[in-house]
Amino acid sequence: MHVSEIETPAIAVDLDVFERNLTRAADYAKAHQLRLRPHTKTHKSSVIARMQLELGAAGLTVAKVGEAEVMLRAEPADLLVAYPVIGERKLRRLLEVARHAQVTVALDSLEAAQGLSDAAAKAGMEIGVLVEEDVGLGRVGLTDSHQLVTLATSIAKLPALRLRGFNFYPGQVKAIDADGLAKFHAVNAALEETATLWRAAGLPLEVISGGSTPTLFHSHELPLMNEIRPGTYVFNDRNTIESGAATLADCAAHVLVTVVSTSRASGMIVDGGSKTFSSDRLSTGGEVTFGLLREAPEAKFVKMNEEHGYIDLPAASRHFRIGDRVRILPNHICVAVNLHERVYGIRGEEVEQIWEIEARGKLQ
Amino acid sequence: MHVSEIETPAIAVDLDVFERNLTRAADYAKAHQLRLRPHTKTHKSSVIARMQLELGAAGLTVAKVGEAEVMLRAEPADLLVAYPVIGERKLRRLLEVARHAQVTVALDSLEAAQGLSDAAAKAGMEIGVLVEEDVGLGRVGLTDSHQLVTLATSIAKLPALRLRGFNFYPGQVKAIDADGLAKFHAVNAALEETATLWRAAGLPLEVISGGSTPTLFHSHELPLMNEIRPGTYVFNDRNTIESGAATLADCAAHVLVTVVSTSRASGMIVDGGSKTFSSDRLSTGGEVTFGLLREAPEAKFVKMNEEHGYIDLPAASRHFRIGDRVRILPNHICVAVNLHERVYGIRGEEVEQIWEIEARGKLQ
Repeated sequence: MHVSEIETPAIAVDLDVFERNLTRAADYAKAHQLRLRPHTKTHKSSVIARMQLELGAAGLTVAKVGEAEVMLRAEPADLLVAYPVIGERKLRRLLEVARHAQVTVALDSLEAAQGLSDAAAKAGMEIGVLVEEDVGLGRVGLTDSHQLVTLATSIAKLPALRLRGFNFYPGQVKAIDADGLAKFHAVNAALEETATLWRAAGLPLEVISGGSTPTLFHSHELPLMNEIRPGTYVFNDRNTIESGAATLADCAAHVLVTVVSTSRASGMIVDGGSKTFSSDRLSTGGEVTFGLLREAPEAKFVKMNEEHGYIDLPAASRHFRIGDRVRILPNHICVAVNLHERVYGIRGEEVEQIWEIEARGKLQ
Repeated sequence: MHVSEIETPAIAVDLDVFERNLTRAADYAKAHQLRLRPHTKTHKSSVIARMQLELGAAGLTVAKVGEAEVMLRAEPADLLVAYPVIGERKLRRLLEVARHAQVTVALDSLEAAQGLSDAAAKAGMEIGVLVEEDVGLGRVGLTDSHQLVTLATSIAKLPALRLRGFNFYPGQVKAIDADGLAKFHAVNAALEETATLWRAAGLPLEVISGGSTPTLFHSHELPLMNEIRPGTYVFNDRNTIESGAATLADCAAHVLVTVVSTSRASGMIVDGGSKTFSSDRLSTGGEVTFGLLREAPEAKFVKMNEEHGYIDLPAASRHFRIGDRVRILPNHICVAVNLHERVYGIRGEEVEQIWEIEARGKLQ
């Protein structure tokens, strides 16, 4: 199948770039003796997850139990649900997953740990636990190392749980510039304080898990961290470029769209809008645009409706015609992939792979 | 199944409110002799589409051919694809749909019409056409009535097409206040000019199709319009309330979420983020929040990550605990529904219906 036969809008992945991204992260992790546990939220495909495992990933990360169920198809030895699992039904499903892979849950409360312990004990199983530290994002996790170790101590006493260590997500580091790197290196102090108190409490500390795509290749600069969980690196996107962690040449995934109208005075309409790209703005808070038109980087993707993308074109760029197919680099590839039924892997001009987005909509 | 057994995050539809919304619009259209041709983009369910047809809808509206394929299951006599269909493969699929229902396409260019005509002629079929007028949104459509009628005249000469009239979308009317109504009534002048030139050109004018949810119950104030295509009215959302076209009591669909963390100093985290709600902001450009917490309207849903909703709570409202389930009215229900595999229809506390979102991801 030729790339021109893909019906738009659709996501096309350049396989050469994608494979280079996979290998580069795997090699980096090996070189620095870091366990790579990719977050599958970006691709939501067990086939890609399997590739990551075959390149040496120590396990997989998911956010939801429904994603864990899908990712069992990749036959991971080890699965991290980096999200508190709350509620009896979800816990029952989690334990079913744990019959097929070692499962660890990241959580930040005794309530979550108690529920997990009760469910696991009832099933006669053991589930791993990471306690989540908040190192600056202000989302989940405990900011105070003393409180965190107190919680870990309580969790260590609960039956059917195996305390493995602690985890964090440095989501506050949006850019790899001097300021961003300073923020990232500041995480060290928090990790050191927690690790010191943790060990002083006599708790087992097998895993300190962190990482993100922007900070990926600086992971070794946090010497205590021994596991990283990047997700976006497989494809990269406009946010990754803005963060300074990738170049255009590292971006594997584009949205193919077709020009459907040129009636607008200021530009054209393409056949993808918020149901194709998501309406995520740039995470760095830059200009409010929704993607980069590769065929005319001077164009501005200024607005979306559900199925319409509004692209403003300077006069000199108004050579696009109805029916033209163009490539757009999205702001945030994870949420874009989640809107599609499948992703096309292309080599040159040929479609070589079609990946179903198996974990799309597995929100529970 | 009790509502408490629905795993979160999930969309629950209050069937009493939903049915009242369906009936109210159907009764309004009948009272004013308007053809109601609901846009199915909101629910993406052929089962709900069938309900709309049984209440008297004259046909259905879709944006994409993939949606048209799904909506054939509702057995509509008449389907409007309110979107230019560009490209041979899409046209072939459209003609296959047209074997099962009368199909009309809205378009704004001779290129789109020519492609449609060529494909239909080759298949020995006839497809209806509406020419799109831009009455102020600046998206697709021609603003100049003379140009529009010139295009319609050319289209009338093409084989295998049946020119049925013209259509518009008053998306620039975001609020039903004095200013918004003035904008809406101003559409009359554009319609009159086009209709006058259209008839003077001797073209058939069976349909003048317009309408939106905010303007729904003012449709009779545009006397030339004889068909309306609202979508959101089946559920309504925070945007509809902001527009002044609905009250909280008219909002049928909420996202059920569970509190998963209370570690944040300023509030709590719930188990739905941009992959559950979409990151659409309010269309009226009001405050940047992502939904209304029904159990604590003073709370502010200030931020999202993919699977995390950040809800700020004033001190007096911090009585939520991990595991609590709450209801959130989303900003934009159409894009939220599109992220879910199914929607639960509830009556009181019981789940009475489960609708698959059959046209989810049917982007092509």
